[in-house]
Order: sequence, then C-alpha cells, then structure tokens
Amino acid sequence: MSYNLLKGKKGIIFGALNEQSLAWQTALKAHEEGAEIVLSNAPIALRMGEINKLAEAINAPVIGADVTSMDDINNLLDKSIEHFGGKIDFILHSVGMSVNIRKGNPYTNLNHEFEMKTLDISAVSFHKVLQAAYEKDALNEWASVVALTYIAAQRVFPDYNEMADAKSLLESIARSFGYHYGIKKKVRVNTISQSPTRTTAGSGVKGFDGFINFSEAMSPLGNAPAEAFAEYCVALFSDLTRYVTMQNLYHDGGYSATGVTQQVIDKMA
Amino acid sequence: MSYNLLKGKKGIIFGALNEQSLAWQTALKAHEEGAEIVLSNAPIALRMGEINKLAEAINAPVIGADVTSMDDINNLLDKSIEHFGGKIDFILHSVGMSVNIRKGNPYTNLNHEFEMKTLDISAVSFHKVLQAAYEKDALNEWASVVALTYIAAQRVFPDYNEMADAKSLLESIARSFGYHYGIKKKVRVNTISQSPTRTTAGSGVKGFDGFINFSEAMSPLGNAPAEAFAEYCVALFSDLTRYVTMQNLYHDGGYSATGVTQQVIDKMA
Amino acid sequence: MSYNLLKGKKGIIFGALNEQSLAWQTALKAHEEGAEIVLSNAPIALRMGEINKLAEAINAPVIGADVTSMDDINNLLDKSIEHFGGKIDFILHSVGMSVNIRKGNPYTNLNHEFEMKTLDISAVSFHKVLQAAYEKDALNEWASVVALTYIAAQRVFPDYNEMADAKSLLESIARSFGYHYGIKKKVRVNTISQSPTRTTAGSGVKGFDGFINFSEAMSPLGNAPAEAFAEYCVALFSDLTRYVTMQNLYHDGGYSATGVTQQVIDKMA
Amino acid sequence: MSYNLLKGKKGIIFGALNEQSLAWQTALKAHEEGAEIVLSNAPIALRMGEINKLAEAINAPVIGADVTSMDDINNLLDKSIEHFGGKIDFILHSVGMSVNIRKGNPYTNLNHEFEMKTLDISAVSFHKVLQAAYEKDALNEWASVVALTYIAAQRVFPDYNEMADAKSLLESIARSFGYHYGIKKKVRVNTISQSPTRTTAGSGVKGFDGFINFSEAMSPLGNAPAEAFAEYCVALFSDLTRYVTMQNLYHDGGYSATGVTQQVIDKMA
Repeated sequence: MSYNLLKGKKGIIFGALNEQSLAWQTALKAHEEGAEIVLSNAPIALRMGEINKLAEAINAPVIGADVTSMDDINNLLDKSIEHFGGKIDFILHSVGMSVNIRKGNPYTNLNHEFEMKTLDISAVSFHKVLQAAYEKDALNEWASVVALTYIAAQRVFPDYNEMADAKSLLESIARSFGYHYGIKKKVRVNTISQSPTRTTAGSGVKGFDGFINFSEAMSPLGNAPAEAFAEYCVALFSDLTRYVTMQNLYHDGGYSATGVTQQVIDKMA
Repeated sequence: MSYNLLKGKKGIIFGALNEQSLAWQTALKAHEEGAEIVLSNAPIALRMGEINKLAEAINAPVIGADVTSMDDINNLLDKSIEHFGGKIDFILHSVGMSVNIRKGNPYTNLNHEFEMKTLDISAVSFHKVLQAAYEKDALNEWASVVALTYIAAQRVFPDYNEMADAKSLLESIARSFGYHYGIKKKVRVNTISQSPTRTTAGSGVKGFDGFINFSEAMSPLGNAPAEAFAEYCVALFSDLTRYVTMQNLYHDGGYSATGVTQQVIDKMA
Repeated sequence: MSYNLLKGKKGIIFGALNEQSLAWQTALKAHEEGAEIVLSNAPIALRMGEINKLAEAINAPVIGADVTSMDDINNLLDKSIEHFGGKIDFILHSVGMSVNIRKGNPYTNLNHEFEMKTLDISAVSFHKVLQAAYEKDALNEWASVVALTYIAAQRVFPDYNEMADAKSLLESIARSFGYHYGIKKKVRVNTISQSPTRTTAGSGVKGFDGFINFSEAMSPLGNAPAEAFAEYCVALFSDLTRYVTMQNLYHDGGYSATGVTQQVIDKMA
Repeated sequence: MSYNLLKGKKGIIFGALNEQSLAWQTALKAHEEGAEIVLSNAPIALRMGEINKLAEAINAPVIGADVTSMDDINNLLDKSIEHFGGKIDFILHSVGMSVNIRKGNPYTNLNHEFEMKTLDISAVSFHKVLQAAYEKDALNEWASVVALTYIAAQRVFPDYNEMADAKSLLESIARSFGYHYGIKKKVRVNTISQSPTRTTAGSGVKGFDGFINFSEAMSPLGNAPAEAFAEYCVALFSDLTRYVTMQNLYHDGGYSATGVTQQVIDKMA
C-alpha cells in the first residue's frame, strides 16, 4: 500500500548492500511512496553486494562513491542532480565500518590509524556529504537528511567497540550541520538510533546474537525490524515532519527508555 | 492535500478550545487524513470555547469529560467505542492548567493544594486516561497515544512555573505506561515537546511574548507552528512510526539542540 | 579519617531510619567531617526506627516533621536555626513512600488518591522544604541541598511502579527551585541518582533481589554502597562543588552509561 | 586552606599554559591538597607558555609530550612512574585545538585533513593516554581520570565549530574506556563540562566575548571560574567520589539546566 507521501521527491540512498540492509528496505519503501532514487555505495560494496537487483526493481541508477572522498561525493551529487533534472529532497547515510573490529583489536588496544579511518568512513563522511551539498546548493528547501546511528553512542556496549565513538561523532555532526543548514535553507538533519537488526554489518560484530537477543528482551515492542525502519525514514523524509531537526530519534521499540523488563529479570534470577 | 494516512482509524482528541489550539489543528488534519474523531474537553472549556464549530466541520461528536474524574473518562471511552463501533486507534492528550499561575503565585510561593490540583489536571489525568483504556481494553493493537509537553520539563523557564514540574511528571507517566501497554498490546505512548505557540493556554503565561520571541530567535527553523504540530501528530498516529514509543520527541525547529544562535548573540551584545 | 570538609557547617538530614539508610550513613559521615546535624523524620518513622541511637552517636537533636505539612517544616527550620544559633548550610532529603506499592496495586491499576499522596510525600515535600527555607531565609549563601533519586525517573523499571513518576517530579522540582534559589542566594540544589542498596525502603519493592543483582551485574564498578553515597553527599555539601547546581548526578558505578556488560550477555545466552 | 584531600596521591596534569588555564589552577589546588604532580604539555606549548613558573611553585617536573604520539605518552608515563616511585592516581586531560578555527574556516567549509587533526589532538589523544596507561598498568586501583569538555557537545554554539564534534567524541571515549578500565581495575573516567572561562584557548574563538556574556547571563550562579573548576577536579580526584564514573558532569552554575533567565528575556525584549 502506498500513501504517495514522497511523490515528486528525489533522494540519494547510501549503503544498500543486500536485502537485509536498512538502506535497501528504505529505498524500496521510498520508491513505493513515489520518490525517485539514486543509489550509492562504496566501490568495494558495489562489487560484493547485490545492489543491481535493487536498482532494477526501483529503476534507480547506481553511482559509486567512496564517502571519504570529496571528489567522489561531488561527482555523485552532480550526476544525481543531472539525473533528477533538479535538486535533492532527501538523503539517507547508512554507512559505517570499523577497521579495528575487522582486525579483531579490542577497544583497549586499538590501532589509532585504523581508528582515524573508522571515524572518517563512519562519521566524517557525513560532514563531507553535507558540506558538498551545502557548497553546491544541491538540496531543496526543507530537504531531509538522515543518518543511521545506534544507542552505543550514549551507553557502552562492549562489543560495539570504537564504532560507539564514531556514532557519537556522527550524531554531533548531524546537530552541528543541522544548525547551519537549517538557518541557510530550512534543511533538517537528524539521526535515527535503530534497534540492532540482522544485517551484514551487524553480523560482523562479535557476540552479536547474545546482544540482539538481549535487545529484543529489553524492548517492550521488540526490536524494530528493517521494514519499520524504512517506514520511519519515509515519515522523516516527508513533509509531515518539517520542524524536527538536529535530533537523535530512537526507533527501538522502547529499548532506550527501558531500564529492565520482567523477562530480563527472570532470566537473571 | 491528503495522503489518507489515517484511513479507517478512530481517535479521541482532548483539548481543542479554538482555532489556535494545537488539538484543534490536529483534529482538522487527522480528519483530512481519513480518521474518525471524537472530541473531548472539560465542561467549562466546552462552554467557553468554540468546539462546536470544529465538531461540525469534521463531523465529530463532542463528549465532555473532566479528565481528573475516572467516571467521566470511562463514560467518554464507552461512548466513543459505541460511536465508532469499534476500538480506538489514537489519542491526543493536550491538557494542562496551572492553578498557581492563574492565581499569580510565584514558584517560590506556591499554594500546595493548588499545586496538587495542577499535577492532577495536567499530568495524572494522562495516567487516568491510559488506565481506563487499559482496564476496558479500549485500544486496538499498535494504537498510538500522544501527550503534549514542553522543554521546561528539562530546562528551567522561570515564567513556566509549576507547569514545568507537571510536564516532567507527564513525560514520566508516558514512559511508565508505555512500557506496560507496549508489552500488553503493542500500544505506543509518546510525548511531543512542542515550540511555544500563541494559543489561549500560552497567552496566560506572564512574559509570554518575550519568551516566544526568544524561542523563535533560538530555533534554526523558527518555532514550529500549530499546523506543523498537527502534521507531526498525524505521522505519530500513523502506521509509519510503529516502533517509536516511550519517547519525548522535540518538535521545535531545532531549539532543543541549539545552545545559542548568532541572532541571539547579536542581540545580547 | 576526617578531612574536616564540613567544619563549621550545619545541616538537616531527613530520612535516617536505621543503619542501612543512606541518610543514616550520611549523617555519620557529615558529623565525622565536622558538621553539626539536626535529624528529622516522620513521626511514625521516629517510632519504628532506631534514630535515637544515631542521634546519640553524633550528638544531634531529633526533630520530627511530617514533610507534607508546612507547619511541621516551619517548626523544624525554626528549631534548627535556634539549635544551631545560625542559618543552615546543607539539607539532605531522603524521603519517599509509595502508597500503591504498599497496597500491592500494579502501575496499570493505581488508586489515584494514593498516587497523589505518594507524589506529595516523595516529591512535593521537597518543594515544601525549599519554599519554607526560602521564605524564612533559612539557608546561608552557597548552601547545598540534595535529594535522593533513582534512574527509574529516566528509564522504566517495572517494579518501581509509581515511584518512578514521583522521582521525575522530584528531579524537576530540584531544577526549578535551584534556578530561583541560585539567583536569589547562590544556593545550589541537586539530586543524586543512587544505585539500589539494601535499605528498608528498597526491600519493600517486589522483586528487589533480582533487580539489585541485575544492577550489580550492569555496573562496571558494582552498585555504589551506602558509605560511598555518604562520601559523595559530603563532597556535594562541601565548598569544593559550589558551581554544580540543578543537576541530576548519577552515583551508580557507571550503571547509567552502560548498555550491557559481558556478564549480563553471558547470563542471557 | 587545605583539607589534605589528595595526600599521598600522584597525578599527571596536561594542558597548563598560563595562570588563566584550568589545568594551571588545578595543578595548584591539587598540590595544595597534598598531591604530587607531573606537568605535561605539547612541546610548542612548553615554549610559548609559562609552565616553568608553575613547576617551580609546586615542585613538579615538566615532561613534554605530543598527545597524538603513543611514544611520547609512553615516555611520559614511564618517567612519571619513575619520578613518583609508584603508580598514578589521577590524570587531567585539558587539551584541545581546532585547526580549522585557527585557519578561519567556517563549519560549513572545513578542511577535512585539518578536521582529522583536530579530532586526533582534542579527542583521540584521550584514548591514547588511557590505552597507554591500561597497557602498562600505570594507574592505581580507583584512580580518577578527568577530561575537560564543553556543552557544545550537546547543543550547537556556532562559533565553537568543529570543536563541538571533537568534544562529543571525547565524551564518548570517556564512557567507552571508563567501562573497560572500571571492570579491570576500578579506574573511573569522567568529563567535566565547564562554563566558558577567559583562557588563552577560549580567546581564540570568534565572538568569544558575546558568548561568555550570554553564558554568564544564562547561569543562575554565573559562569564557574577556573578556581572553582580546580576545586571540583580535586573532589573528583579524591576518594569521596569513587562510584562516579562514565559521566559527563556539568560544572556551569546551572547553565545546562536553564532554558532562559529573566535577565536574558529582558535583554531580548
């Protein structure tokens, strides 16, 4: 079912790797709601993933971009505007990668060059996208920009490692740029703090199963699935949420406001 | 323009006094989006306000209720279900009144009986509505309940007086009941922390003009107008936001995440 | 060992029932640090508890007061000032009681008259104490007022029931009154959000053991014991913390900033 | 006057440039309270500042270290332990520098290589110090580590620029490492979010005067001076605050919990 909530809107979606991806589901849903989409991902992800299947399904071009490269981002924005024949109404930044986690380094023994790389890919890239858009005036008034984050930015989840710090940085960038872009052109910038889902990214995290089960048991509504994330994104891209900006929005079935559930207490007893 | 976002949904809206009211605008918008509505307000507000004009416009019955009375609330729920021929999908609680502000008592010299009355009307009433609904199983699965609040619950605005404490209590009740109702029936409960608007309620607050101007100057997008509040409410009542619960959601043009704006710095210089 | 941190200071401590009480430990510690103390508690608690043992040990008068009664509070303040021969430098409000918990009513089926009583005893009483002090100018400049709270004010712990809402209200009162008393006389007002401890009050809460064990397992330093609470209170009463005001301060071994620990993940597996 | 609160304790203080520095005042106060100190700063700051004056006054060695270099940090820790003849009890990290601010780049036009440098100096350096200490087991049980931060990490202050994002990252590192070091050795890690003060660092920020005046007018107790910061640090280094960890602690005269003051409303009218 479609409400046509995004009819006439044009957006870029970063980070759709395969059907499990939050970005994949969001692209599908945004298309269903009437939006035109450009898909983007890192060159290596384009090779590994199945993005072309998605691209066909929603009739969207795929434009590769290394989000740490201003040149790539500028190229992506230019080509997107050319493709759309106009400016952009929404962006989803669903990008993150921890080099130290990949290498198996614990948080207390990080390689700091890797850490800088993690921060660049997972957080500073968001600033780069916004700055490139700001400089070339690529977004329409009231455009909506969303980045994906996780509650590890507020509370420690040990296996989440350095990615927690990257997400804190990302959330701060959303606030900071949201201020400037809001004043300049009423563009709003928010982060969605999403329940863990069984994505390819998530499954790289050690102890992910125990962790996702804990999260499920601690959420009054259960973990929010990827489809629900997509719907929430669509609501944030739409004109119904125009005065929401510079916020970190929990989409987590109530997890963030739950201290403990009876279910967890029972398991601990 | 309508998206039919609330097609088939039924809801109760408390607190529509006149065209300036957030609840009034929400009732209009929800109706436009396909919902059936029951309007409610306190008996005295029904006499003073212009609710019948709204009732006609959206073809909604008006059922008076003193929200501090469980009998009145029970009656309202029973009659609503009867009217709708089915259970309820959403509720807006936009109710608040400070007896001490009316009497001109400063925060440091409250009459504590009045304070208890303020807490009862402005916050405990929300518990009463939820408890009555819970007991008679009046809400459908995934129903959405929203209460109106203000950032004075987090930071002091001196003229907001005891109402700040009432709003803190209200937000806590939303979390607490959201937990239980979420587990029982996937009902979600949230508060919207809205920009000040020139409503009848607001205009009773001393120094309201200076205050609303400060808020405007401190919000990158400006204060959120009542119409935008209505749209945001509709998004929260819809199926697009089903995993958002137990949250306090700022709908404030970025105010809550802004420390200072250049505009305010300039005025202070 | 004593640092003489509170030498020459005079304070009122509410809520010392027996050796397990946080207030009891704080009175001992404040005395050790050179303070003069007046002890107060509700008439019924005076009869049940062992406060006289403490009073003797620290050479402090016991002045009963029902904290919901302005008359009792005024009497307490007057007598304290008379006893001290001067104004007051610190107050600890460690008072809370849930009538509905005592009666076994679940959160979804509260008796609302009991709820109002709970709010009055556990939260509004704090406003009453501050207002009485403010009106009779009973506090010295830079006096420090602390109230005891719990993280249930931010996140739901189901067995904490209506007391969560009372604590939210209490924390808001601390902020609101902290503003006015700070401007008037540089008095600071804070709440300490303390780990659960095995006090008489705590042991009344259903499922308290499972709950305290969960908290222990979720705190990197373990639950903060009552003796540590007393030391932290002394730091907040001292001149070393004069610019800390209107804050809710977690004294919880890191619990509040921990999403999950390895220990909990292991138990959940 | 001294309480001997830090008698027998040994600590490293980073960032004392001149008398206005928060770190300078903290070193003086910690010394007064009985601690032995090692002073450290970046080589360039050692040349520019007047640290030797301080070193003499408190009889402390100065050991230069570029905090972005693990080698320098390791050397500093080794020499400090040698100097003290034992492990370390506290550390103050008061280090921050924004390359883009120095270069006059606005937030919407950052040089991203400079940004990475800013993040490294101002935030990742804190991880490096903690990691080096953790690896060589340089801290005693219950040691206390504090880093200086600012509320721009939560709310936007436009002239604070990229430093806001660096402070968010810093605060996250404090939480993350606080978890691991707490579990391993009961070491606590916190950040103090301090009022703006007229330091050399602060005066580099554009529009700093308007900003500090706004902050003063918005703080019920006024901006916290450097001497008060030093006292608060001493309290956090002491044994009185052992269960406080992974927290961001506002030391700001109530600023963070104040929405607006009458004084500001009046100026805005």
